[in-house]
Amino acid sequence: MLFSQRDTMYMARALGLAWAAKGKTFPNPAVGAVVVSKGKIVGTGATQFCGGPHAEKVALRMAGKRATDATLYVTLEPCCHYGRTPPCTKAVISAGIKRVVVAINDPNPLVNGKGFALLKAAGIAVDTGLLQDEAAAVNEDFFWAITKKRAWITLKLACTLDGRIADEQGDSRWITGREARTFGHELRRRHAGVAIGRITLERDNPRLTVRHMKGFSPARIVFTSLEKVPLNTYFSRHAKKARCIVVVSGKGRRTIVRNANSGLEYWHTGEKETHAHLSVFLEMAFENNIISVLIEGGQRLASSFLESGLVNRVYLFYGNKILGRGREGMLFSKGLPINKCISLNKKQIFLLGDTIGITGIPDNLK
Amino acid sequence: MLFSQRDTMYMARALGLAWAAKGKTFPNPAVGAVVVSKGKIVGTGATQFCGGPHAEKVALRMAGKRATDATLYVTLEPCCHYGRTPPCTKAVISAGIKRVVVAINDPNPLVNGKGFALLKAAGIAVDTGLLQDEAAAVNEDFFWAITKKRAWITLKLACTLDGRIADEQGDSRWITGREARTFGHELRRRHAGVAIGRITLERDNPRLTVRHMKGFSPARIVFTSLEKVPLNTYFSRHAKKARCIVVVSGKGRRTIVRNANSGLEYWHTGEKETHAHLSVFLEMAFENNIISVLIEGGQRLASSFLESGLVNRVYLFYGNKILGRGREGMLFSKGLPINKCISLNKKQIFLLGDTIGITGIPDNLK
Repeated sequence: MLFSQRDTMYMARALGLAWAAKGKTFPNPAVGAVVVSKGKIVGTGATQFCGGPHAEKVALRMAGKRATDATLYVTLEPCCHYGRTPPCTKAVISAGIKRVVVAINDPNPLVNGKGFALLKAAGIAVDTGLLQDEAAAVNEDFFWAITKKRAWITLKLACTLDGRIADEQGDSRWITGREARTFGHELRRRHAGVAIGRITLERDNPRLTVRHMKGFSPARIVFTSLEKVPLNTYFSRHAKKARCIVVVSGKGRRTIVRNANSGLEYWHTGEKETHAHLSVFLEMAFENNIISVLIEGGQRLASSFLESGLVNRVYLFYGNKILGRGREGMLFSKGLPINKCISLNKKQIFLLGDTIGITGIPDNLK
Repeated sequence: MLFSQRDTMYMARALGLAWAAKGKTFPNPAVGAVVVSKGKIVGTGATQFCGGPHAEKVALRMAGKRATDATLYVTLEPCCHYGRTPPCTKAVISAGIKRVVVAINDPNPLVNGKGFALLKAAGIAVDTGLLQDEAAAVNEDFFWAITKKRAWITLKLACTLDGRIADEQGDSRWITGREARTFGHELRRRHAGVAIGRITLERDNPRLTVRHMKGFSPARIVFTSLEKVPLNTYFSRHAKKARCIVVVSGKGRRTIVRNANSGLEYWHTGEKETHAHLSVFLEMAFENNIISVLIEGGQRLASSFLESGLVNRVYLFYGNKILGRGREGMLFSKGLPINKCISLNKKQIFLLGDTIGITGIPDNLK
């Protein structure tokens, strides 16, 4: 299918709506939809909060009667099953839509291709694949999680030009510039959870909230081999304002204990060995509707995830600084030989003010 | 002065000639010249090997009689003193040139502004400042050396994304991709000398020659605190093919000893303390017509120069690799606190295949 320039324009608009909704729709994917009638946009919509209407329905409601014989642009295959809401395919058919243009099909086994089939059976023209790569990027975490049944992991590291995340005194404020730190909040907004290690909690006491922009607060997660976390931290003191999870390693049963007093959830993976511990966490996160987690450090947690081959996407930020000594961003338990080291696939490079950003997919991803 | 598009075009051509000559003219600056008569280029030239004619004379010779009433574009103020060759101003005047367009004036105290004055006195129109920044970049090393009476230092480090220059086994082949290594040879070509530390000599046995492109062989320099260098190295075995210098630290007299048998020169700085030792080396290099040196590592030599504030320009290359452990590119004797660390001024970022390049001027330059 060769799409027209107008088709592309409308789909780009729908993608913009999807990106804006990103982070507010978990565990659902973020979707955007645009209804066009007689060359005019008559309805727009994005996925609402979990349990609320999907993008198509919001757009169709806005379009009202003008949806008859109109074209619907939607960034993901419309759903066809009863979940928290009735199927979107039904709403599309009853609105009298004549043509549906879709960016990418839904890998969710409950939908995958079945949505298209239902629409076609109702006599609706369906064209797919427009801006497919862009649509895949919006929901790469969802697509991964729904097919692998484990959470998507993004690793973010802010380091100096010589690869350090703190000076010899442990000071890390600020390695990168303002623009990069703002983008850090954008990354938090896009994830269902934000995680750090216990040492980082004790040293930096980060809030792990989304500031500088609107967005839901992701779940806050601290990894520890101890049973307890310090009580005088923002994490512990504000545990009732967002989902706050303490992930504990160690032999035993896989359990989740919710402490009504503190508001903290304790997740025991029942595993002591690092790779097994982190793998179980990824399954538990998925089962508990946390489909994506942003790892913000420190050195040990970041290195453990990356060394274990459990990182889906890396963001490296290089501030314009050279420290000469200090805490290295990466320190594996076992160094890699140069001919077997990790490379980044689909690498992209960008500038955030004075800071250089690199993102890519580690080639040791399991 | 507002220059025309044609003026800019001819000066850009002259700058291209200067860049091509770079590395072949030491200790002279690299200069390009273009003679334009009646809207046509009738002569081009660049500085020839030391002692050979300057760019203006080459271009004027090519132009011959067509130089009468023509315009001369030259990237550096024409010289007006008797050095190894007669002054260029004399040649310009006697050729009958009507107008001279110059990119930048020559900071050499023997010339600085005097060249312009002589031309103007002869009735020639002189316009200066066209593509001045670009012309300054070609000879930034020469301008620094001639005013500071010490050699310019470029530091090049090829490291992984986690800031390492070798894996745990000391293997560094290859951290960066082919394009970056080719650019490494381009950097060698542009410098009067290429330097490494003794440990790098012993471990990697680099040839320190310019390959993959035409150019003169820069002087090869090894820093050591010992009196001797291993004899079974390319450096020692080919010491008669290029100038090969062993820079020795330690208390005593500042001396240069040339060994006729081995072909090696031993430079004793007479200083033991790192900063003093390196500073004396920079003076000795300048006095011995080595106006610029490319430091290629290893960790200790690179870190010493940078920590001492003696690096004029840094090139950092980040290969698409993560090792997790291994030799860090930078390791100062004293770590810097984050609010007093080194930043790069006039930072530029570029891509060489899969490798990210960063260049800039360290803000601790003394």
